[in-house]
Amino acid sequence: MKTLITGGTGFVGLNVAEELLRGGEDVILFSDSELMAYALQKLSALPGTLKTVCADVSDRAAVNASFAEHQPQRVVHAAAITSGEQRELRDFGRIVDVNIKGTAHVLDAAAKYGSHRVLYVSSGSAYGSALGCGTVVSEETPPRPDTLYSITKHASERVCARFRELHGLDVICARLGSVFGPWERDTGVRDTLSLPFQIVQLAMAGEEIILPQREARRDWIYSRDVAAAIVRLLHVHALRYDLYNVAAGTEWPRFAENWCSHLRPIFPQLRYRPAGADEAANISFLGERDRALMSNKRLSSDIGFRAMVHDDVFASYAAWLGGAGRPPTNKE
Amino acid sequence: MKTLITGGTGFVGLNVAEELLRGGEDVILFSDSELMAYALQKLSALPGTLKTVCADVSDRAAVNASFAEHQPQRVVHAAAITSGEQRELRDFGRIVDVNIKGTAHVLDAAAKYGSHRVLYVSSGSAYGSALGCGTVVSEETPPRPDTLYSITKHASERVCARFRELHGLDVICARLGSVFGPWERDTGVRDTLSLPFQIVQLAMAGEEIILPQREARRDWIYSRDVAAAIVRLLHVHALRYDLYNVAAGTEWPRFAENWCSHLRPIFPQLRYRPAGADEAANISFLGERDRALMSNKRLSSDIGFRAMVHDDVFASYAAWLGGAGRPPTNKE
Repeated sequence: MKTLITGGTGFVGLNVAEELLRGGEDVILFSDSELMAYALQKLSALPGTLKTVCADVSDRAAVNASFAEHQPQRVVHAAAITSGEQRELRDFGRIVDVNIKGTAHVLDAAAKYGSHRVLYVSSGSAYGSALGCGTVVSEETPPRPDTLYSITKHASERVCARFRELHGLDVICARLGSVFGPWERDTGVRDTLSLPFQIVQLAMAGEEIILPQREARRDWIYSRDVAAAIVRLLHVHALRYDLYNVAAGTEWPRFAENWCSHLRPIFPQLRYRPAGADEAANISFLGERDRALMSNKRLSSDIGFRAMVHDDVFASYAAWLGGAGRPPTNKE
Repeated sequence: MKTLITGGTGFVGLNVAEELLRGGEDVILFSDSELMAYALQKLSALPGTLKTVCADVSDRAAVNASFAEHQPQRVVHAAAITSGEQRELRDFGRIVDVNIKGTAHVLDAAAKYGSHRVLYVSSGSAYGSALGCGTVVSEETPPRPDTLYSITKHASERVCARFRELHGLDVICARLGSVFGPWERDTGVRDTLSLPFQIVQLAMAGEEIILPQREARRDWIYSRDVAAAIVRLLHVHALRYDLYNVAAGTEWPRFAENWCSHLRPIFPQLRYRPAGADEAANISFLGERDRALMSNKRLSSDIGFRAMVHDDVFASYAAWLGGAGRPPTNKE
């Protein structure tokens, strides 16, 4: 089985690639940025075969050419620009080109070259401001896209539904929670780095970490859980739905502090403490308000998904960071 | 007051222009297709002043240049490609460029050049498949965009909301019902011509009209009602909402047959009859299923909107068709 992954050298893309290669599958990484040497070395050591295509999903001809050449049976479409406020004003056209038109190019090529299943990597932000109401959202909650990123992810989900209707394309949308874990780095196209990654960056810089007095509720999910769920969603023959939340579905109490404690073995000098009364934390996350958790009932009942327990997640991520003898830098 | 209308030479654009010019206002028609001689003659006879700009909303520099030159206080953004199934597959990129990026270009220019209010001409199709459930939809009904046109209209509404949030831009979205009336013609960018207009086309060709045995319920609205509502939405100082259905809000029993009877004075030779048991009608509308009506409660309570009575609508449209001595052709 050959799987083409767009955004393949990105955070989620590399996790999915690793999971597939570990299972001995063939993977084509389609991306407009090159695979870093450290990732190439890690992925090449796995049983499956790895190929790379350097191209842009907004370039329809390039998408078609790579489908024509590789004829992938499965597609994971993860390429996207995650824009913060500054970028969405500056790069509106480019974000629409990559996030919406890029999706159509990939779906069109998948239909044309007979891919068996496409998995569209959407995001909990497709819910938009619906995440600000109540404590849990499910796939049946009406979305209310708010930011440009949110609008493009929601629109792309609907484009997927339209291709399914018009072409009979087998395409599934996966709405991811707030992902953190191996392969996260500052690539320049992700404006919102996860809380755990910000902590890693500060730890690498030798800075003291000042934790927020109160952590906002957020639907954190480990990137390896995401990869496992996506690969299952590619493999399971008959799925009951065309949209799945991919989320841990649980609160992570004292998330930042727990993560700091798990980092101690790798960064023995690590210092962290809660912010004082009038002091600002030096880690932050876009919008500090509580967000609804995403229900993973569909995912657990249809593919038997179970998220790893929190301590195992932190241990796993810490081991990955320490695995190279030192944490990989942004450039690797 | 100067009002710039994108898609200004199109169906809805011309109706709005006429309404504004009749009130003595200055109008700039921004469109990528030229104003036809017949329309120019009619509009020039009205009290307001008329200017035209031939440019494309997907061309950001052209949009900015025309805002810089004309500095409109008000904007009606009506430019869009209404795609049927064939076009959405063929011209995906172009539809996204015009319908979504074009909207952002107009909003961005309006914010930059200090327009006081922007009215985005959206469509009932932003509701998507939500129109297939129940008998009435209101602005609070969660949309479920289905076709590419529907997806782009819904996404553009959300882009409007985002510009309102980020720039404090005063932008109102108007979701129109199924519009028919003066200035409708086959321009090549509207794939779905209204039932009344199809009847006019057959009448002009001297063909017998075969009416469907049963007419699907549809939220028909007269284009002059639409123009009156849009102009009120531009003028009323404080509006309670940022989204309004612009719809008649009533069923039109025996719509096609009534319209045929009103056309008799203009086409004395007109023949029409219901289709026989196994016979197909020769007029049709996209998707022959009943569609929910759009509630106009917000519109009636906030701007005092009342749709014209059906007989007056038909008489008005027929008079317009006969006004030139003969109905204008597609090219006029």
